[in-house]
Amino acid sequence: MSLNKKSANKVSGGTLTKYSFTSSSLNSLETAINVFLPSSAVSGSKVPVLYYLSGLTCTEDNAAQKGGFFNAAEAAQIALVFPDTSPRGAKVDGEDESYDFGSGAGFYLNATKQPWSAAYNMYDYIVKELPSKLGELPIDTSKASIFGHSMGGHGALTLYLKNRGQYKSASAFSPICNPTACPWGKKAFEGYLENGLKEGEQYDATLLLKDAQDQPGILIDSGTADDFYKQGQLLPENFQKVAEEKGFKNVQVRLQDGYDHSYFFISTFAEDHIKFHAKFLKA
Amino acid sequence: MSLNKKSANKVSGGTLTKYSFTSSSLNSLETAINVFLPSSAVSGSKVPVLYYLSGLTCTEDNAAQKGGFFNAAEAAQIALVFPDTSPRGAKVDGEDESYDFGSGAGFYLNATKQPWSAAYNMYDYIVKELPSKLGELPIDTSKASIFGHSMGGHGALTLYLKNRGQYKSASAFSPICNPTACPWGKKAFEGYLENGLKEGEQYDATLLLKDAQDQPGILIDSGTADDFYKQGQLLPENFQKVAEEKGFKNVQVRLQDGYDHSYFFISTFAEDHIKFHAKFLKA
Repeated sequence: MSLNKKSANKVSGGTLTKYSFTSSSLNSLETAINVFLPSSAVSGSKVPVLYYLSGLTCTEDNAAQKGGFFNAAEAAQIALVFPDTSPRGAKVDGEDESYDFGSGAGFYLNATKQPWSAAYNMYDYIVKELPSKLGELPIDTSKASIFGHSMGGHGALTLYLKNRGQYKSASAFSPICNPTACPWGKKAFEGYLENGLKEGEQYDATLLLKDAQDQPGILIDSGTADDFYKQGQLLPENFQKVAEEKGFKNVQVRLQDGYDHSYFFISTFAEDHIKFHAKFLKA
Repeated sequence: MSLNKKSANKVSGGTLTKYSFTSSSLNSLETAINVFLPSSAVSGSKVPVLYYLSGLTCTEDNAAQKGGFFNAAEAAQIALVFPDTSPRGAKVDGEDESYDFGSGAGFYLNATKQPWSAAYNMYDYIVKELPSKLGELPIDTSKASIFGHSMGGHGALTLYLKNRGQYKSASAFSPICNPTACPWGKKAFEGYLENGLKEGEQYDATLLLKDAQDQPGILIDSGTADDFYKQGQLLPENFQKVAEEKGFKNVQVRLQDGYDHSYFFISTFAEDHIKFHAKFLKA
């Protein structure tokens, strides 16, 4: 077993367990995940999995503690996996200087620029390495969907659109929808990628949606009182416009009146998102 | 308006607002509360209120962020009020030395021992002062119930049993049920009360239940994997035994298999507790 069990709590009839392991994608650094197994999986049956990607500054813990997902995941008998948002302790100069770049801000891409490229490979980590680790658990990784918040919403949308065979559906709370056109995305792409914004286009959900062939299954909720929305960091309208132009009827973008960027917003619609994915995972 | 608004977040269709104010019970120290108003109250209608008392080390924030109460409170159209667990900054020697006495550990009593008696009056604060502050909000304090966790479960049970006219029902997660017989309770009563344990009997839920005349409405959930339960800090069996001896059929004590003392446990049964109180508050 390459997963080291760190702690476990019973919740909602299932179990939340924290594991750590050495990640080859992340330059052999130790990383941690939280895994919720619903009751049937605790009893040994394999269940579908829903990956949750967190936003800037978060670890594997924030959404597990504040997201309010477990009662709904138990009702749907779906496992939830919460990875960290970046490598930790990569010892790159400047890694801990800002909240929106470096530690806690991996942006779910593979860095190509030195010195970030050695460890900052959250794309490979989530898409390739993490599912292989879950083979040790009663999880059927062939039935997988993905969701997330803010930077993690960007991650969920882009990983899904780039790997349609691997994920059945994607959803997001307050996602960064068009990172090549917003300050957070520009800073990340110019910092992590050798060819900057141009190279970043492959990690831009709005641009990826333009090129999508098959009807995608996507749900997005974003709050109108979200300061980052008001600052133009999220740009859900750009994503929605492409979905309409392409006639993608299974892409829903909902602007939720008066909600902000917090976990209070996420917990309000948590059950909605689990139910959305359950339709795809149980189809 | 004597309440100072510090922040507000929309959640579950209602609003969570943090207020601060100067408390006369707490020696004119500033204290903070979180108040959840469901949608009908946000629109101005008066709604019933459910007070939530937190456990050792917590502030007004922990249960608001991790308890998972708001979707159920919105469904029931009940306001939730989260006070702090002690005065803050009373400048009593030793106040911040231990997690289970002083700051974060007011034990919902009125201290009679110097120097604690000046500010450590959480009983008066919750029972008398707090409802008068809520008069400024669309809350009908004549329809009130009370619940809490651990030390706050002790608070909910004792405040209810001592003030049956004021609260319609009480419930608790992992409460300290018999504090005169456990280490936490003994330390608190001997530290805060001039006549120690003897004086503490008036704040012991199991002893108060022995003297109860009318049928109480009480729900208790406690986990069997709770380390504090195993250490004999909680003693739900003692409370249950008295309820059975007295023939109190509306006192339910449920030992929940495999659950611990954490917010994961609370969030699992949060909806159950809100629904329990809604029956009394809407009767």
